[in-house]
Amino acid sequence: MGLIEEMLAGDILSLARLITILERDGADVPQIMKQLYPRLGEAYCIGITGPPGSGKSTVVDRLTAVMRQRGFTVGIIAADPTSPFTGGAVLGDRIRMQQHYLDEGVFIRSMATRGSHGGLPRATGGVIKLMSAFGKDFILVETVGVGQTELDIMQNVDTVVVVLVPEAGDTIQTMKAGLFEIADIFAVNKADRPGADNLATELEMMIRLRSDQTRWQVPVMTTEAINNVGIEELYGQIEKHRQVLEETGRLSQRRQEQRRREFLEIVESRVSEELLKLVERDKELGQHMAMVETGEVDPYSAADEILRSRTLLASWSRQMTERRPKA
Amino acid sequence: MGLIEEMLAGDILSLARLITILERDGADVPQIMKQLYPRLGEAYCIGITGPPGSGKSTVVDRLTAVMRQRGFTVGIIAADPTSPFTGGAVLGDRIRMQQHYLDEGVFIRSMATRGSHGGLPRATGGVIKLMSAFGKDFILVETVGVGQTELDIMQNVDTVVVVLVPEAGDTIQTMKAGLFEIADIFAVNKADRPGADNLATELEMMIRLRSDQTRWQVPVMTTEAINNVGIEELYGQIEKHRQVLEETGRLSQRRQEQRRREFLEIVESRVSEELLKLVERDKELGQHMAMVETGEVDPYSAADEILRSRTLLASWSRQMTERRPKA
Repeated sequence: MGLIEEMLAGDILSLARLITILERDGADVPQIMKQLYPRLGEAYCIGITGPPGSGKSTVVDRLTAVMRQRGFTVGIIAADPTSPFTGGAVLGDRIRMQQHYLDEGVFIRSMATRGSHGGLPRATGGVIKLMSAFGKDFILVETVGVGQTELDIMQNVDTVVVVLVPEAGDTIQTMKAGLFEIADIFAVNKADRPGADNLATELEMMIRLRSDQTRWQVPVMTTEAINNVGIEELYGQIEKHRQVLEETGRLSQRRQEQRRREFLEIVESRVSEELLKLVERDKELGQHMAMVETGEVDPYSAADEILRSRTLLASWSRQMTERRPKA
Repeated sequence: MGLIEEMLAGDILSLARLITILERDGADVPQIMKQLYPRLGEAYCIGITGPPGSGKSTVVDRLTAVMRQRGFTVGIIAADPTSPFTGGAVLGDRIRMQQHYLDEGVFIRSMATRGSHGGLPRATGGVIKLMSAFGKDFILVETVGVGQTELDIMQNVDTVVVVLVPEAGDTIQTMKAGLFEIADIFAVNKADRPGADNLATELEMMIRLRSDQTRWQVPVMTTEAINNVGIEELYGQIEKHRQVLEETGRLSQRRQEQRRREFLEIVESRVSEELLKLVERDKELGQHMAMVETGEVDPYSAADEILRSRTLLASWSRQMTERRPKA
């Protein structure tokens, strides 16, 4: 697999190709990740999430500029279908982004948000590792904070910035969408609009009401990303959060949890994959499936049967052993 | 399990309790579903999805009124955190909904949109079955069409209505979010706003460009749900789609696929559950986990080891056999 060596040597095309392989979840993925793991870099990963229209992409764009000014390299992953980075943008947005598209120190990748639900968070985790091995100092991950899949992606990052706007209104909705629990930093964007101060005050009150604030007091920043206001301060808070995570040992703890989760997800998806093959191949299992399809048996009873059957274990054992020499 | 009998006899509190059990994915779920399967009703299920702010809840509200006028009973499932049905609404919305909250022929349930990604679509599928067994004629499922989890929910319904608004703009974004592929009917809502005609024309053009339009020509309806304009016509198209599905045998085919998917998901989640228990109990597996957490071994290699190990199979076999007498 020369691709990985080429990528590690700094070849951008190889990086792009490796990302595509990860996205498609091809058979090569385990091999790639095994080679990658000992070579992971020191990248610090920041998630930017929030409701559609809150200006997440502009925040990403401006933060990137601040990081570049300080001489850091940046990787951007846009897993947000409405992001200008993924192509879903009006012309003005695109033109604004161009400065980074032409900058060699910035690598931008949009992720296809379709596909199996477990797939996108895992693939995003893989792409973060690729960019880290490639040598990026910072990785910014943009998702739209509405769906569960998108929240799951945020488990792969070190600091989560939740971007809100005054007219998104209602902090209740933010809480219901699960954004409150995952926020390490709030950014009230478009802060020149009416209601921004109220929103910031409301958020601060809610943060004070929470009890587990001994380690890190979630700051509420106000920004006008489009006018480049408050971005340096936002970057400062990210650095501060990073420092706290490092000093308290929580960064390594967080990454330990990530590895644990990744491991369990891999085992689960491998088991599911093998099961599907078994159902296709195995006569007895196929019969259960047919009876479920016609409605003769309910799926729960059929699942019980299959999981208790000796046949499953025997076929499983055969299937795994057959494959052993090739691996 | 008196709860199911009580629910089937028309007790609303039992229905609500059963839904809660399904949502929590408790140990009773398989037993409940096994009892439920032979008693499923004839409910027809309609999914209403679209971007935030497109007025999905108002469409649900108005469609419900049309169905009630015709004497049909309705179940509403809101799996959309921004829906007024789930509580995330301004006061005006809530007041509007009240007519249905007080109507005994309408059962409204909001689903927690947090939790494991695979869980919500499966739980929603279960709640649809509960409401069907309860005797509802129509079930309306509202989701926000942004995340993958929310799209997965739509695999449980018979007709998918995608609600768009002119300012959501860009049909490209609709396509990227995967809404185009799942739409059986488009509703361009807030049709009094500028750009509505353009959006409708654009959608119609894109539908004509698709090749697989032999069975059902996806109609583009214009509605002003808030003013009750176009809702009768939308209901008419839903009935028309239902008729086509029934006549071509595609309704039973669609439900066959649903059962197949449900079965595989159950098997997968049961296997994952058992695996997790094994990892906690089994010494060898626990050691692999520890090495993954510290970063000594990459998760892919550890997964390989575990899936090939004889220990897994032996422990599995023991675990499943132990449980056999109890089931």
